[in-house]
Amino acid sequence: MTDRSAEAVELVDVWRGGLLESVHRGHAIIMHADGNVLAEFGNADATIFPRSSCKMLQALPLLESGAADRFGLGSEQLALACASHQGALLHTERVSDWLGTLDLAESALRCGAQAPSDRAEADRLRTAGERPCQLHNNCSGKHAGFLTLSKHLSGGPDYHEVDHPVQQAVKDAFEEMTQETSPGFGIDGCSAPNHATSLRGFARALATMSDPARLSGKRGDAATRLVAAMRSHPLLVAGEGRACSELMAAMPGAVALKTGAEAVFAAILPEQKLGIALKIEDGATRASESAIAALLVRLGVADPGHPLVAKRLNPPQMNWNGIVTGHISPAETLWQDGKTLA
Amino acid sequence: MTDRSAEAVELVDVWRGGLLESVHRGHAIIMHADGNVLAEFGNADATIFPRSSCKMLQALPLLESGAADRFGLGSEQLALACASHQGALLHTERVSDWLGTLDLAESALRCGAQAPSDRAEADRLRTAGERPCQLHNNCSGKHAGFLTLSKHLSGGPDYHEVDHPVQQAVKDAFEEMTQETSPGFGIDGCSAPNHATSLRGFARALATMSDPARLSGKRGDAATRLVAAMRSHPLLVAGEGRACSELMAAMPGAVALKTGAEAVFAAILPEQKLGIALKIEDGATRASESAIAALLVRLGVADPGHPLVAKRLNPPQMNWNGIVTGHISPAETLWQDGKTLA
Repeated sequence: MTDRSAEAVELVDVWRGGLLESVHRGHAIIMHADGNVLAEFGNADATIFPRSSCKMLQALPLLESGAADRFGLGSEQLALACASHQGALLHTERVSDWLGTLDLAESALRCGAQAPSDRAEADRLRTAGERPCQLHNNCSGKHAGFLTLSKHLSGGPDYHEVDHPVQQAVKDAFEEMTQETSPGFGIDGCSAPNHATSLRGFARALATMSDPARLSGKRGDAATRLVAAMRSHPLLVAGEGRACSELMAAMPGAVALKTGAEAVFAAILPEQKLGIALKIEDGATRASESAIAALLVRLGVADPGHPLVAKRLNPPQMNWNGIVTGHISPAETLWQDGKTLA
Repeated sequence: MTDRSAEAVELVDVWRGGLLESVHRGHAIIMHADGNVLAEFGNADATIFPRSSCKMLQALPLLESGAADRFGLGSEQLALACASHQGALLHTERVSDWLGTLDLAESALRCGAQAPSDRAEADRLRTAGERPCQLHNNCSGKHAGFLTLSKHLSGGPDYHEVDHPVQQAVKDAFEEMTQETSPGFGIDGCSAPNHATSLRGFARALATMSDPARLSGKRGDAATRLVAAMRSHPLLVAGEGRACSELMAAMPGAVALKTGAEAVFAAILPEQKLGIALKIEDGATRASESAIAALLVRLGVADPGHPLVAKRLNPPQMNWNGIVTGHISPAETLWQDGKTLA
């Protein structure tokens, strides 16, 4: 968003009592693996931080380097490497076991402790008088992937530092896939670097992931395995009740979806060979979820009547007495740009 | 926001790693009690739902009718009538006692139960195996005020219905203070009606509250008492750690501040005889808090160096390791519109 002259457009509306209460603006782009742009909204050249939505790109070196195979990672670990998980037992136990196969403990992680979003695990910790640990951090799977690569490269313990060979490999893969020199990086919530890119560059990377035959051998295999892992394990990529997991469950096998903080959403559609990248400029996840659902409906991939799709596309707003007081819905812009997408 | 042709303007920026990550747009207006506009940002004629930020207007009939004095309400009850409180014991006990003086129980409320935001009370409930009740609802003080007026008017039990004499009186007061016919109403989170108005009309009402000498006898007294009650009891109006309470504490006695859901903020400044109304169009409270703090700084009322002001004006963003990864700050627009305000 350093180019403010090209404005974000209205993408999602919040209604109450038949009047418009709030509005979310943003940018989105749907790109084919051959580079053709099917649809653009707002300013696709806006600079964004993809945040967690680019984890599958950040995981490419884990496989290309041979590290994943050297340490026998299966599709569950690959899904966790791409995950922003709920910190449930199904997540923490797998990450803990993974670290064990590297002869490492939780203390090797650099993501920081985070209270789990998973209700059952939060209750268990509280009842037991235990504090959350780094395994509960939603990025612990990504970091286990970084530790695996670091061990393979004989890197030092601070694999999260931007000049560490792990992060250098991640940056190179990211820039090669986006086909852009990143204008800079920020430090993510989990302390790893997050490189900025244009929304167009991000879509280019995602579209390429959707058609891995276009990539050289090792990277093509890596992309294939990561996308397959995400689609096979939607509950590991996020968790119960989460948009990514629920939308993927509503369209089994059709799409790999990944949310990012500050309302970024990424989608990889292997059958259509498409990548979708969107950013709600104000950072509201309620809007990025509605917008990505709308685009998936327009592409004929999501059924607007499916409860898990409707839940995100057009959620009612309920008050403390359970009365429906309004709703959230995609703006006209998302439906009527004049292009046929499906 | 029914008039979308006049765009909201950039008011608050979210930064990470030196790059702009997210943007919040909105509208704001500062008006003198004499009607003069000191500053406008965006479209002051945008239609908004004030939500909780208009509670002091909704409470005018409670006093004007004589109900408040008939039932011996003091300034604490008046503050609670204007409050969106944390559901702490200091709030629930007072509302419970208030209902008792009306010979009413919690069951007379129509706001619905809501889990308290106050950590201590939430822990107490959980430990005791108790569920939250309607007293914990952040609007229970406003509803106790409605019940008081209803008893005075000999109204039926469903005082929240739009055609009930209580809500008719509230609507009349609201339209008289905004000097507008409301384009419609929505149902609020607490099930009471919330009438829409233009931001300009809302500012007009707030500015008039700041100079009650301009109002007829009973309404002037009512306004004086409500604003005094809010300024005297900042912790009742919101609670520990809340923006309204903390900003009011940073500027003791200078301003009555009230937040509303979907990022509305209202301010009444009796010394300057000003009203401020602002709406962040995407509904993000982090932005409405930064923006209202910026306007109070520009008016010379808030000290940007005061920790409780800096906390809202320019909060750092911290990650799971406690590293500062970015910050939120008012956009240039809020500082450089060329007008001297203080």
